[in-house]
Amino acid sequence: MSTVTLNVKGLTCGHCVASVTEELSEIRGVDSVSVDLNAGEDKVSKTTVTTSGVVTDDALRDAIAEAGYDLVSIER
Amino acid sequence: MSTVTLNVKGLTCGHCVASVTEELSEIRGVDSVSVDLNAGEDKVSKTTVTTSGVVTDDALRDAIAEAGYDLVSIER
Repeated sequence: MSTVTLNVKGLTCGHCVASVTEELSEIRGVDSVSVDLNAGEDKVSKTTVTTSGVVTDDALRDAIAEAGYDLVSIER
Repeated sequence: MSTVTLNVKGLTCGHCVASVTEELSEIRGVDSVSVDLNAGEDKVSKTTVTTSGVVTDDALRDAIAEAGYDLVSIER
C-alpha cells in the first residue's frame, strides 16, 4: 500500500469534495480517498489517495479533470 | 402560473445550484427553477421559481434547508 498526495485547485464545497472522491475512487487500485477542503476557486485542497496497486499519474489526472478541477501537482 | 424569487445564501458552485434546483423541483406545484449563481459562502443567489399551483413559503423554506442553505428572503 502506498500514498499519493494530489494538490487539487478549485474545490469550493462539500459537493466538490464528493465529486472528486467519487471519481478517484473509481480508479482500479485506489483504496481510499481523503480530501482536506481548502474552499475557494483559487485555493488548493490537499487530497490523499491510498493505493494497493499501480495507479498512474495519468489516471489520477484524468479523474480530477473528469470531476472538473485542476490537478496542480502530484507528490509520491 | 406565478413566479417566486428566493434569495438563497451560501451557494458556491454548480453542484450547489444542482442541489437547490433538485430540492425545489420536488415540490408539488413547482414547474421550473432557475438559479442565478452568485458564488460565495456569504453571498446571495437569486433563485426564480415558477409555479402552477399553491406553493407555501414553508415548503420553499424546507426545500432550501434540505439542500443545506439559508433562505434569506422570499419575494412574491
